[in-house]
Amino acid sequence: MSEFKVKTGLAQMLKGGVIMDVVTPEQAIIAERAGACAVMALERIPADMRKSGQVCRMSDPRMIKEIMEAVSIPVMAKVRIGHFVEAQILEELQVDYIDESEVLTPADWTHHIEKHNFKVPFVCGAKDLGEALRRINEGAAMIRTKGEAGTGDVSEAVKHITKIKAEIQQYKENLKTESDFAAKATELRVPVDLLKTTLSEGKLPVVNFAAGGVATPADAALLMQLGCEGVFVGSGIFKSSDPEKLACAIVEATTHYDNPAKLLQVSSDLGDLMGGISIQSINEAGGKNGARLSEIGW
Amino acid sequence: MSEFKVKTGLAQMLKGGVIMDVVTPEQAIIAERAGACAVMALERIPADMRKSGQVCRMSDPRMIKEIMEAVSIPVMAKVRIGHFVEAQILEELQVDYIDESEVLTPADWTHHIEKHNFKVPFVCGAKDLGEALRRINEGAAMIRTKGEAGTGDVSEAVKHITKIKAEIQQYKENLKTESDFAAKATELRVPVDLLKTTLSEGKLPVVNFAAGGVATPADAALLMQLGCEGVFVGSGIFKSSDPEKLACAIVEATTHYDNPAKLLQVSSDLGDLMGGISIQSINEAGGKNGARLSEIGW
Amino acid sequence: MSEFKVKTGLAQMLKGGVIMDVVTPEQAIIAERAGACAVMALERIPADMRKSGQVCRMSDPRMIKEIMEAVSIPVMAKVRIGHFVEAQILEELQVDYIDESEVLTPADWTHHIEKHNFKVPFVCGAKDLGEALRRINEGAAMIRTKGEAGTGDVSEAVKHITKIKAEIQQYKENLKTESDFAAKATELRVPVDLLKTTLSEGKLPVVNFAAGGVATPADAALLMQLGCEGVFVGSGIFKSSDPEKLACAIVEATTHYDNPAKLLQVSSDLGDLMGGISIQSINEAGGKNGARLSEIGW
Amino acid sequence: MSEFKVKTGLAQMLKGGVIMDVVTPEQAIIAERAGACAVMALERIPADMRKSGQVCRMSDPRMIKEIMEAVSIPVMAKVRIGHFVEAQILEELQVDYIDESEVLTPADWTHHIEKHNFKVPFVCGAKDLGEALRRINEGAAMIRTKGEAGTGDVSEAVKHITKIKAEIQQYKENLKTESDFAAKATELRVPVDLLKTTLSEGKLPVVNFAAGGVATPADAALLMQLGCEGVFVGSGIFKSSDPEKLACAIVEATTHYDNPAKLLQVSSDLGDLMGGISIQSINEAGGKNGARLSEIGW
Amino acid sequence: MSEFKVKTGLAQMLKGGVIMDVVTPEQAIIAERAGACAVMALERIPADMRKSGQVCRMSDPRMIKEIMEAVSIPVMAKVRIGHFVEAQILEELQVDYIDESEVLTPADWTHHIEKHNFKVPFVCGAKDLGEALRRINEGAAMIRTKGEAGTGDVSEAVKHITKIKAEIQQYKENLKTESDFAAKATELRVPVDLLKTTLSEGKLPVVNFAAGGVATPADAALLMQLGCEGVFVGSGIFKSSDPEKLACAIVEATTHYDNPAKLLQVSSDLGDLMGGISIQSINEAGGKNGARLSEIGW
Amino acid sequence: MSEFKVKTGLAQMLKGGVIMDVVTPEQAIIAERAGACAVMALERIPADMRKSGQVCRMSDPRMIKEIMEAVSIPVMAKVRIGHFVEAQILEELQVDYIDESEVLTPADWTHHIEKHNFKVPFVCGAKDLGEALRRINEGAAMIRTKGEAGTGDVSEAVKHITKIKAEIQQYKENLKTESDFAAKATELRVPVDLLKTTLSEGKLPVVNFAAGGVATPADAALLMQLGCEGVFVGSGIFKSSDPEKLACAIVEATTHYDNPAKLLQVSSDLGDLMGGISIQSINEAGGKNGARLSEIGW
Repeated sequence: MSEFKVKTGLAQMLKGGVIMDVVTPEQAIIAERAGACAVMALERIPADMRKSGQVCRMSDPRMIKEIMEAVSIPVMAKVRIGHFVEAQILEELQVDYIDESEVLTPADWTHHIEKHNFKVPFVCGAKDLGEALRRINEGAAMIRTKGEAGTGDVSEAVKHITKIKAEIQQYKENLKTESDFAAKATELRVPVDLLKTTLSEGKLPVVNFAAGGVATPADAALLMQLGCEGVFVGSGIFKSSDPEKLACAIVEATTHYDNPAKLLQVSSDLGDLMGGISIQSINEAGGKNGARLSEIGW
Repeated sequence: MSEFKVKTGLAQMLKGGVIMDVVTPEQAIIAERAGACAVMALERIPADMRKSGQVCRMSDPRMIKEIMEAVSIPVMAKVRIGHFVEAQILEELQVDYIDESEVLTPADWTHHIEKHNFKVPFVCGAKDLGEALRRINEGAAMIRTKGEAGTGDVSEAVKHITKIKAEIQQYKENLKTESDFAAKATELRVPVDLLKTTLSEGKLPVVNFAAGGVATPADAALLMQLGCEGVFVGSGIFKSSDPEKLACAIVEATTHYDNPAKLLQVSSDLGDLMGGISIQSINEAGGKNGARLSEIGW
Repeated sequence: MSEFKVKTGLAQMLKGGVIMDVVTPEQAIIAERAGACAVMALERIPADMRKSGQVCRMSDPRMIKEIMEAVSIPVMAKVRIGHFVEAQILEELQVDYIDESEVLTPADWTHHIEKHNFKVPFVCGAKDLGEALRRINEGAAMIRTKGEAGTGDVSEAVKHITKIKAEIQQYKENLKTESDFAAKATELRVPVDLLKTTLSEGKLPVVNFAAGGVATPADAALLMQLGCEGVFVGSGIFKSSDPEKLACAIVEATTHYDNPAKLLQVSSDLGDLMGGISIQSINEAGGKNGARLSEIGW
Repeated sequence: MSEFKVKTGLAQMLKGGVIMDVVTPEQAIIAERAGACAVMALERIPADMRKSGQVCRMSDPRMIKEIMEAVSIPVMAKVRIGHFVEAQILEELQVDYIDESEVLTPADWTHHIEKHNFKVPFVCGAKDLGEALRRINEGAAMIRTKGEAGTGDVSEAVKHITKIKAEIQQYKENLKTESDFAAKATELRVPVDLLKTTLSEGKLPVVNFAAGGVATPADAALLMQLGCEGVFVGSGIFKSSDPEKLACAIVEATTHYDNPAKLLQVSSDLGDLMGGISIQSINEAGGKNGARLSEIGW
Repeated sequence: MSEFKVKTGLAQMLKGGVIMDVVTPEQAIIAERAGACAVMALERIPADMRKSGQVCRMSDPRMIKEIMEAVSIPVMAKVRIGHFVEAQILEELQVDYIDESEVLTPADWTHHIEKHNFKVPFVCGAKDLGEALRRINEGAAMIRTKGEAGTGDVSEAVKHITKIKAEIQQYKENLKTESDFAAKATELRVPVDLLKTTLSEGKLPVVNFAAGGVATPADAALLMQLGCEGVFVGSGIFKSSDPEKLACAIVEATTHYDNPAKLLQVSSDLGDLMGGISIQSINEAGGKNGARLSEIGW
Repeated sequence: MSEFKVKTGLAQMLKGGVIMDVVTPEQAIIAERAGACAVMALERIPADMRKSGQVCRMSDPRMIKEIMEAVSIPVMAKVRIGHFVEAQILEELQVDYIDESEVLTPADWTHHIEKHNFKVPFVCGAKDLGEALRRINEGAAMIRTKGEAGTGDVSEAVKHITKIKAEIQQYKENLKTESDFAAKATELRVPVDLLKTTLSEGKLPVVNFAAGGVATPADAALLMQLGCEGVFVGSGIFKSSDPEKLACAIVEATTHYDNPAKLLQVSSDLGDLMGGISIQSINEAGGKNGARLSEIGW
């Protein structure tokens, strides 16, 4: 089986699951106990990075190792866009997945990492079909919506998943001739057959998770009902007043995403959720609280 | 009788009434005692949400439940625009009405909820005829003016109710031929027969309440005399120095909206009313106190 | 005699007098003792309203009643532009005049009150002939210049009275043919015969007072010499160090407006007058101290 | 002799003299002792008015009277541009000259006072020939440069006196035919014979003093050597560390304006002079310290 | 051998090495012990200079001398762009290399130093091929990317090295005829044969180091894998919590830049690295934290 | 010999020397002891004037006198641009040179002083050949670059001296015919023969010193090597931690400007030099720290 097939297969095993940002082994254990299918090891939560305006790099391998030793579920870690040496280091560390993430400070503003050169599977963010297919073409084994990490506002993730579905739908209907396909492939800067397989299957050739701004069980269920195959949850969980309860609730909501009774039960009495920053107030602040993360990457 | 007929019928029962925002069971009891025809269960009052710039989501189902158990009059609760899972949860909770409200942070900036998929009746805000008919076309069983929630300035609600009446009047006079109707329906993005029935009846096919900025008995009577069929009152009441007295006064003014003697009697000695923020000072602040709520939704 | 004739007649009785803003019965008594021909009952002085940027509404009927009971001279009170229910309440309260005033927060940004529907006489502000005639056409029985309330800067009132006189003069000379009159009437959005009577009499068909920024006896005399038939005095009086002395001085100056000796005598030793805010510094502040009141209304 | 001749004659008697702003009888006595040819009675010094942004009006007649009784030299006092009642009051008070001054807050932004209607002589500010002739045409018996009062920066006064001399020179050379004169007179909005007499005499038909920003003996001598016939001194004197010494020095410098030895002697050891605000820093502050006084008036 | 050959030869000996900014003899000793191939003697670290906005000049020769005496490895020092007298002084001091650096405040905004006039070899910064060849043409014996000194964000250095490689590649493919070469040489303002030799060799004729924003071992290895021949490290090292450990790690990573196991080992447990300022936040600050250093020089 | 010849001769005696700003007799004595060829008597140092935004005038003649009595070397003093009475006063005081300086607040924004009318020699600032020749044409006996006084950033002085040399070079090559010379003279607003003599001699007809931003011995030597004939040093010296040592060092560097050994020796161990403000940070501050002095004058 091609190495790429192995990698996308690994990602398939996460389907229907919740992947939680954790910054300490203790948080990783809470996540595992709550039923997370994997954890993302991070030095600091996106919400704090956004405001500090400092350079955010790969986390300290020692801290990632401690988290890998604390839990049995897969452990992911982030590298800067284009920083293929940070990726070489994490592959050497034998993390389960690498997230080439717009949340860190890009190391290269023109080239993403040649992900085909690595055995470890990569997950990348995408805000539309073009970005998704370009990442897959570079070797990404899993895609997630960019959403707007660190805000607790789900509307960006909704926008990205709806956009990708709408583009697939629209191109399926409108692209008739070979030259139509060729023109669209050139426009999206991807090989034409990758475009064709995606359109014929009516979905991305790799697992597609929701990410960015998921803060409540209802948010997770909303994105699952919109067609996402699992959910990344970032700063929301550990900024709430009862992280463990919220973690379990979100796992439940992701599993029983279309069972209102279950959803009502897990949505009640969750205490104070993450206040977050609405996309609108970020736009009005004209970039004063840092540029929109979804605008980073291309 | 069609499910939609049942839902609009339920709304008819509220006609001539006052629906009050409440954040605790105690406030709900005051409202009921003052003669409110229904209460809107909310975690925080629009005026506070506006300034905080945080993400405002569906309230905690447990808090809504407590209010439902505290009073016998119908209880409404708000969901974010487009967040159909929050709506599934509140339907499961058996609230009496759901308000898909521009006052919360929209979860989807392109699609409103398909309200026909639900049994519970929905109320939506509208600042002109197009918005009203689009919501009704999606299944809204009741409409309210958007006004400018949280300001205590009645002029936006006046503008919206006058606009809707003026548009109905103007299209009745100007639309002659089938193609006129078709063109206007396309422009308003609604089915042509919904437009026709509205114009022929000379009013919306569903109950139309006033909302946004009602702070005094005179304001309530003004909007009733302008053709509204009831009044939503938000932050005004419980920010004043004597909420119970003001609540009763507004109910009286809404019932006896065209009896000056009654209006004079209930308008006197109400103590300090809500200072509020004039629409003009919001415009001059160039969005610094948050964008205009009436601009949210489409 | 037509009801409108009765109302304009009532206003005629105020000619040559001074109408003073008062916020308490005590101030009303000082005003009466100083020779004011009427008082304007207000919850707060325009100067304070301007800065607070809050919603300014009709005053509490109970407070207005106390002032009516404290003095025998006529008592006026203000309603928001377009708020015909506030007017119904004050008519019910039997105030002597209603001021539909740009100083309060407009309740309707498109329609003024249909003043013909009321028995109580209305006074309205106007910054040019068009505004004056439109208010009279809606039933206003008395006009006052808008000036710039709350500033203590007389130049706006000077501008408005000079503008109205100059427009009457200019149209008298230039409008020859019936079509000239019709065109100008359409431009001013008033009936052509109201325009004709005004031009032929060479003055407005109703009493025209000065208002907005009058702070010294010399200011009052200046506006009387420019053709005003009486003077409204706002925040100036009760912000000065010796209100009673200033009140008497302004009444004297308004009566003996063309007797320099008298004017010198009443202008001396008045202590600290109201600092006020010059129109120029308001313009330079680019609206930071609130928009220009004279710009409100149309 | 025509009343106007009497008034301009009075002004001639001030030639070569220094007129000092004073706010108390004590300051007036210092000025008289220092050799001032007249004093200007003012409630506050221009420098302070500029920053406060408040409405500046005619001073309290009682305070002016005390100054008139304290000294034997002529006493001038200021009125707002266009406020002919303030002028009637000061004429009644029998002040020696009235300064219709851009330093106070204009009462009328379109009309200056009809100065021919008064017996008392008027002095007005002018920044160019047009303004000077317009004021003379309205009856001004004396002109002074506007300069930039309250700044201690002499460059505006230099600009205005140089401009007036240059315009007289230039029009003398370029205006040949009757139609040339007529066109220029219309452009300057003055009668053509007033323009002709001025050009033929090569100077204004009335006494022309320097004013605005004179802070040192050298400044006074500079303006005298540039053709001014006397000097107004404002805030400079009484803001310096030794007002009496500076007052004498400036009188000396104005009398012996072309005697360097004398000028050196009176310029030495004057202690701390008024810091002032350079015209440039006012421009850079984009009007934050108040608009340029020389821009007021037309 | 030509003097220029001697100078470029000297630079060749630094290949594969790390050159560290040091401000004291103690830091120089740490650098030497950690395996640095040379040190850059500086009064203050670029990060601090950037914020202070003060004039940054050549360091005090006495301080440079102390560092030269403290270590045996070569010592470099910086001069302002165009300040050939500062260069004469450092040559006299017998420093091993001079860095004509955009990090100091340029002394001449139009001319760089005529480096051929000096025996001591110069290193200059370049952000593209044109800048590199112009510096070499003036006599620079060594080139380094400009990167964005003082930020700890490696993306600018990545951009500059990638740009220079891409330009060499692109011109090699596209420049065919003599006139092509001539036109490109004129555009780059360099002699045509210097351009030709560079293109034929496929690399710059002098050693090309990475510089600006290198903060981690992974960053150093990234730039080496991208084709740099050594690394300058500035503020990163001595702002971290364990400078010696980081110094050794970066030397190891530069030597074993393509050995992931080695890279993982030296990247672990480095404690707090320099927070730095991301390029993006500098751009958003619109120059408030000082203009982009890479924009200085031409 | 023509008076102008005498004056330019006096200036020739200063060639190769350093002229130091001093504000007290003590500082003047330090300067003399350090070998200054003359001192500039000033009330405050340019750096402080720049920030205060106040009006800067001629210093108190008494303070200048004390400095003249404290030293035997020539004493210069500044007058405002266009203030010919300040010049008359200093001539009377018998100062050795007058600097008509853009550092003080201009008294006349259109005319410089007619320097031919004075016996005392004048020095003026110039940022290009046009300004230099215009000042010489008005009678200036000595020119200095404007540089950017009070910044300690030498780059403006470098720009001005390089510009003047480049313009002389360029016009020498390009101006062939009489009409070329006439056109350029008109453009520069100077007599054509002054232009011709300057071009034929290849340098200004009067001594040309460096000024503005010289803070180190290396700066002084740089400007001497670029062709200046001496150096003005302002705030740099007495803001450093060891003024006397720096004063001597700068005199030495100006004398031995092309002897690197000497320059190295005097540049070492000078302690903390003036931080200054880089031209770039002034530009970025968009005039907030005062407009660029080099922009003043024309």
